[in-house]
Formats: sequence, C-alpha cells, structure tokens
Amino acid sequence: MLKIGIIGVGTVGQSVCQILEQNKDIITARAGVELKAISGVVNNLSKKRDVSISLSDDVDTILDDDSIDIVVELMGGVEKPYEVVKKALQKGKAVVTANKALLAYHRYELQEIAGETPFEFEAAVAGGIPIITALREGLGANHILSIKGIINGTCNYMLDKMINENIPYDVILKEAQELGYAEADPTFDVGGFDAAHKLLILASLAYGIDAKPEDILIEGIENITSEDIEFAKEFNYALKLLGIAKTRDDMVELRVHPVLIPNSEMIAKVDGVMNGVSVIGDKVGETLYYGAGAGGDATASAVVANLIDIARKGKGSPMLGFKKPLEVGLKLAPKGDIQTKYYLRLQVEDKAGVLSKLTTILGEKNISIQNMVQKPCDDTSAILLLSTHICNEKDIKDALDIFETQHIVLSKPAMIRIEE
Amino acid sequence: MLKIGIIGVGTVGQSVCQILEQNKDIITARAGVELKAISGVVNNLSKKRDVSISLSDDVDTILDDDSIDIVVELMGGVEKPYEVVKKALQKGKAVVTANKALLAYHRYELQEIAGETPFEFEAAVAGGIPIITALREGLGANHILSIKGIINGTCNYMLDKMINENIPYDVILKEAQELGYAEADPTFDVGGFDAAHKLLILASLAYGIDAKPEDILIEGIENITSEDIEFAKEFNYALKLLGIAKTRDDMVELRVHPVLIPNSEMIAKVDGVMNGVSVIGDKVGETLYYGAGAGGDATASAVVANLIDIARKGKGSPMLGFKKPLEVGLKLAPKGDIQTKYYLRLQVEDKAGVLSKLTTILGEKNISIQNMVQKPCDDTSAILLLSTHICNEKDIKDALDIFETQHIVLSKPAMIRIEE
Repeated sequence: MLKIGIIGVGTVGQSVCQILEQNKDIITARAGVELKAISGVVNNLSKKRDVSISLSDDVDTILDDDSIDIVVELMGGVEKPYEVVKKALQKGKAVVTANKALLAYHRYELQEIAGETPFEFEAAVAGGIPIITALREGLGANHILSIKGIINGTCNYMLDKMINENIPYDVILKEAQELGYAEADPTFDVGGFDAAHKLLILASLAYGIDAKPEDILIEGIENITSEDIEFAKEFNYALKLLGIAKTRDDMVELRVHPVLIPNSEMIAKVDGVMNGVSVIGDKVGETLYYGAGAGGDATASAVVANLIDIARKGKGSPMLGFKKPLEVGLKLAPKGDIQTKYYLRLQVEDKAGVLSKLTTILGEKNISIQNMVQKPCDDTSAILLLSTHICNEKDIKDALDIFETQHIVLSKPAMIRIEE
Repeated sequence: MLKIGIIGVGTVGQSVCQILEQNKDIITARAGVELKAISGVVNNLSKKRDVSISLSDDVDTILDDDSIDIVVELMGGVEKPYEVVKKALQKGKAVVTANKALLAYHRYELQEIAGETPFEFEAAVAGGIPIITALREGLGANHILSIKGIINGTCNYMLDKMINENIPYDVILKEAQELGYAEADPTFDVGGFDAAHKLLILASLAYGIDAKPEDILIEGIENITSEDIEFAKEFNYALKLLGIAKTRDDMVELRVHPVLIPNSEMIAKVDGVMNGVSVIGDKVGETLYYGAGAGGDATASAVVANLIDIARKGKGSPMLGFKKPLEVGLKLAPKGDIQTKYYLRLQVEDKAGVLSKLTTILGEKNISIQNMVQKPCDDTSAILLLSTHICNEKDIKDALDIFETQHIVLSKPAMIRIEE
C-alpha cells in the first residue's frame, strides 16, 4: 500500500479522496498496489468536508509523517506551496501537484530539488486531458513546431456565448461568475494569466525553455467588442483565447491573447468550458487533445493518474521531459517580436480619400490587406474592419500609432491577431 | 547508446531511421542516451531503400546480435512476427511494434513472454496519436464507460467524400486506391477488420479484456447507399466507421460498424484521412485525441516515442495497463447483444395502410420511432427512412425479418446504427 497525504482538501482534494475509494478496484489493478489517502491538511478545520481521512491544519503532520509516501499539493499560491513541496521532496516523499502558478515560477528549481524523487503535475495544465503525458512521452520524437491551447475554460465559455448568442461581455462575465466558472475577481482568468502559467509549463516540455510569466506577452479578452465578433462571423473565424508557442528560426514565440482562427480548424471546434490543445510536431503533424480543463473530478482524475504512475514505475520520465539540455536550444523571442496576421478595427471619417490615406500608411509599413469591410457608423463616420497578410507586430503597432495621430481616425484603433 | 535493429524496412521503417538521424538532438536530450538504428532486415535486398543502416534478409542477423538492445518489428502479418518477437523477448531484447494484427491475436501471450522486458506498441493504434499512453497512463484513475474511435483513415476519407461531395462508393474507392489510401484488395480496410484489430487493443487497455477479432461484431462500409447519406444529412448526422467499446451492466460491447453520430459531437468533426478517438471516463468525462492515423512519419513518430520511453525508464507501465487482473472483471457481451438507436431504410408499396402495417410490426417488437421521412421512389413505390429510440438489436433484426416476408416491402431493408 502507498500512503498519501493531501495538502489542501478543497474541491479537487475531496475528489481525489473519492476517486481513490470509489475506483479502488481498477486503480489497484492498474497500479499493482492499493493507493490510500491517509491524512489531509486544511486551513479551516471547522469547514465541513466530504472525506473520511484525518484532517489537521498543520502541514507538518504530513511532512513529518514518515509513513506518508506521496504528498499531493493542492494549496494554491506560489511561495507557500513551494516551501511545502521543497520540504516534502527533501524528505524523499514523492509529490503530485495541480498547481500551475507554482510551476510557472519554480518548475526548474523543483526539478533540481526533486532529483530522482518522483514529481508529477498532469493536472496543472488542461485538467483531465493528459497533455503533459502526450507532450513528454507521446510526441518525444518530434521537434514541436507549435502549440495552440484553449487552456482557460472560463474565457472559452465567455467567448462562445459572446459569439454564438450575442451576449455582451459584461453580461456573460456576470453569468460565468454566478455559474462558478469565474471568480469574484476574474482578472486571473479573463486577463490571460491562468493560461500563461499553463503555456509556460507546456513550453518547458516542448522546448526545455525556462521563461517566467513576466517574460511573455499576455493579453486578456476584456477589450473584445461586438464589432470584433461580427468581423469574426463575417469571415468565418472562431474567436478564442489561445496560449501559443511557435518556433521561428532559432526562437520560440510564447504568447497569450485573443485570436481569430479559421472555423475549419479542429481547435476552432472546442466550445463552451472545454479545453483543447493542438500540437504540431515536425514528424507527426497536427495532433489535438480535448476534454474538461477544470472541475473537481476531471482534475482529480489527472492527479490520481500520476499517483498510479508513481506506484507503477517510480520516477519514470524526467520531470520536465529532458534528461539533459539540448546542445543548441531555442531562445525565447522578445515579448513584442511577433509575426502573424492581424485584424484591425478603425472608426474613421466617412468621406472621400480616407481609405486611400489609411492604406498608404499600411503600405509604407509593408502591411498588405487580405480582407476589408466598411460599415456606416453614424452620419459622419464609418467602421473599417480589415485583416492583413503576415507581417511584423512592430509594423502594425507603428501603423496604429500613426493612425492615432490622424484626425480622420476618430477613436483608438483595435487589433486582434489571426492564427491560420 | 542504445542500438536498434529494425525488422521490416518499408515506409515506416525508413521513417524511423530518418527520424532517429534528423531529430537526434532532441531525441538524445529527451532520452538521455543516443538511440541508433544499426541494422535492418528486409525480404528483398535488391529493392532500393533510403537508409544508411546495414541490411540483411535474415532475421537472425538481428536476433543473434547481442549488441542490439531493442528490436523494432514492422513486418506485418501475424504468425511470423509472433515467432520473431517471441524470440527477441526470450533473448532479453526490448521490442517495439506497430503491428496491430499481431496484437489483436497474441497480445496476452506476448505480455506473458515479455515479463519484465519492455514491449511497447504506441504505433499500433491510430498512428501518431498517443492514444495507448493516454489510456494506459493518462486515464488510469477512471472506469472507462466508452471508447468511440475513428481508427481507419481509409474509411473516414471515403465516407467524408461520399457525404460532403456526393461521390459514389465505387468511384471514391478507386480514387482512394490511386492515392495509396486503400490497398488493391481493400477488404481489410473497408470491411472493418483493421479497425477491429485496433479496437481490441484499446479494449485490453481499458478493460483488461482478452477478445479476438472473431468474437466481435465487424461490419464495413461497403453497403452504404446514397439514401443513407441523404438521411444523415437531413437529420444532421455524420456517418463514420467507428470502433466502439461500451460498458453495460457487467458487460462490454465491442463492435465495429458504420454509425450515424450527431454533427454536434466533437468526433463527428474528424474529417478526411484523420483519426480521432473519444474516450469517456467515469471521472474525467469525455476526452478526445485527434491526429494522423497512418503515414510513414506519423507512425514512426510513435515508434520512436516508445524507443525514448524504453531508454528513459526501461519497463515503465505494464504492457497492457494492468499490473494484476481486476477482481471482478467485465465480460464481453455476445456479438449480437447490442442496445442502441437505429436508422432503417425500406422500399415499400406506395399505397394506403402500408405505414400503419409497418409501424404496427415495430410496435409489437417494442421499437419506437424517433424520426421518419417518406420519399417517392417510382410510380408505385416509396422509400421510407426512419430512426428509432434505443432498443435491442435482436428486436430490430426480428422486425427486419418480418418486413422481408411482407409483400408491401419491395427490397431488402437496410439498417445503420446511431450512437448519440
């Protein structure tokens, strides 16, 4: 029997306990030994929890208990769990965590500290989808050319409703909060930070690259308007918040932002709160992984899968997928150094010569237009929606800056990137 | 360095050699050691091959070479590769195979023979998609409720063209053969046998169930007509050849046949030659895996992933996913014992009272109708297309038998199962 201590017995922790009991037959058959949750640590002992393990409010009851083989860390936060996990590893206890923030900041230190002690984190990205295993084991033969992940269910749910049911941002945010999909302070989700944490973990597995959240471009879905939604529909795009990793020459672009994707792509079909990750390998081509990215049982399914792994084979694969560094690794592209297609939205004066003026500015910046729609706005102004061919983000930003100085441009121009 | 011998150096074998050379940097970093293809065995030495390894036409040059650590079996067939793989394992060599037919018949004997020697087969199901790893590692915490797999790209390509471009079966079969998607004798693909082999492997990982191809229902796509296609379109279904595993009480239904699936389901969106596998676990809900199911590089990507796995951790997980049998395992449901929804197509006399007669027969067999369309066929007959609610296949078969005895039914009725 392997004994398990759970630090943080909230929704996911309770699901872990329940799965270990309810599915004991199949888990024991697969693992070869029984996996038993023994004790848990919580902040507030007076809160009622649906588990039969012994509870304490002191992490040392687990860390100092030599009979505990595996620590499951589900506390949330960064620095406190880091200290706890570090201590557990130093005591030779295997660790399983679902904590993406912890890994976004400390994954390489933890790999170092863990050494030959198992440290697993399947639940940290895309909940129940075994994307860590897929990247680390299944696609190991490939240079990864790109990862495009819908890895925040809250944003995907909101965008889905905005685009398919024409519900405005504020209304759908309130609904998502009422349904429990979004927190009271939704910034972490809608601002793209949650997705960024997960993207950084995937980037380590794909490229062995050690980047932190502050090193990469992170933009949320807060500024999407109904005009953007209309443009997406008109040109047959889906609108998604994507975590993107993409190689270019000897660099990797890492970025999180709203993206227009052609509806024909498989990832465009990932709707509602579901998650989906498309990975393109140089040999395998595109593979895609789809499933529930959150929820107690789905997340706990991944935690328990890691417990079974540890029971079966101990250390298994290297934590972050590389036994040794690449001789010639890829560099992280500077934050703003992006090449892609762009969608632009401009409110302009509705009179002769305006279009020629604007296209001249774009042309001087080597930006060529792929599609354009003009719609009347009011008596004197029009909305111009256009998409570009691939160009440099710097050129787009420069063009937008110039637009802002033109009196014919009546409000701040908007931009969304297109990936196709 | 781990030395690899490849038995069968066709398209996939050559891709394995190329990947090991071209992606040596990332493979070595991930595996921790260099993986080097040393020698290969082929039937016909005079055929030109694009590899730099030494070639022989005698399997013993690899089996008797003590310096070879891992044998990659890519011969095809069943009994001959079984003997070769057995001998390799007995000599303590790790084995990686892409041979689904071998595993459909001998996977449990091979697991026994392998013992603690690594034996891996990621490439045997759905080519480059890491579905073996997903089921064996990623979803280990779950009782698997169902697997629905588009695991034959040839059939999916053909059905896609039939439904989206109205190309008749014979024409698209010929085109698939010219494109190299279908063999000169296409029975193995279009008859569902290839998909059945793969389904049996997935069923072992999910349920620990030892079934052979002859134990399960296998129907191909040969009898699909344009009327079936029209019904699918009219009621917003996709038409796919699925490998299905599904639990019911203490039984598992295993079956391969054409299926109508609601277009809204994610797996309905797997088009062209692509493969996709939907797995529903009792805890994780639905997950789906999508990618290239065939082709040299995609298949070799999975073979090389297994080589990396073996280099990293030796045996790793138990070959078929279970360290010991389930105490109370699931039984294989008898071949014809199926419960699902059905679509029926009948050519009937176009006169009063016919509909009432037919619905009475269905009612007596406890079959209730969900949708019905009647279309004129010629001056005296009509085509009746209908779908049922969930019922027993035995009742459907009985009703169809009774229909055939009725003079008002003018030709043999057709039936396609619906999964939703």
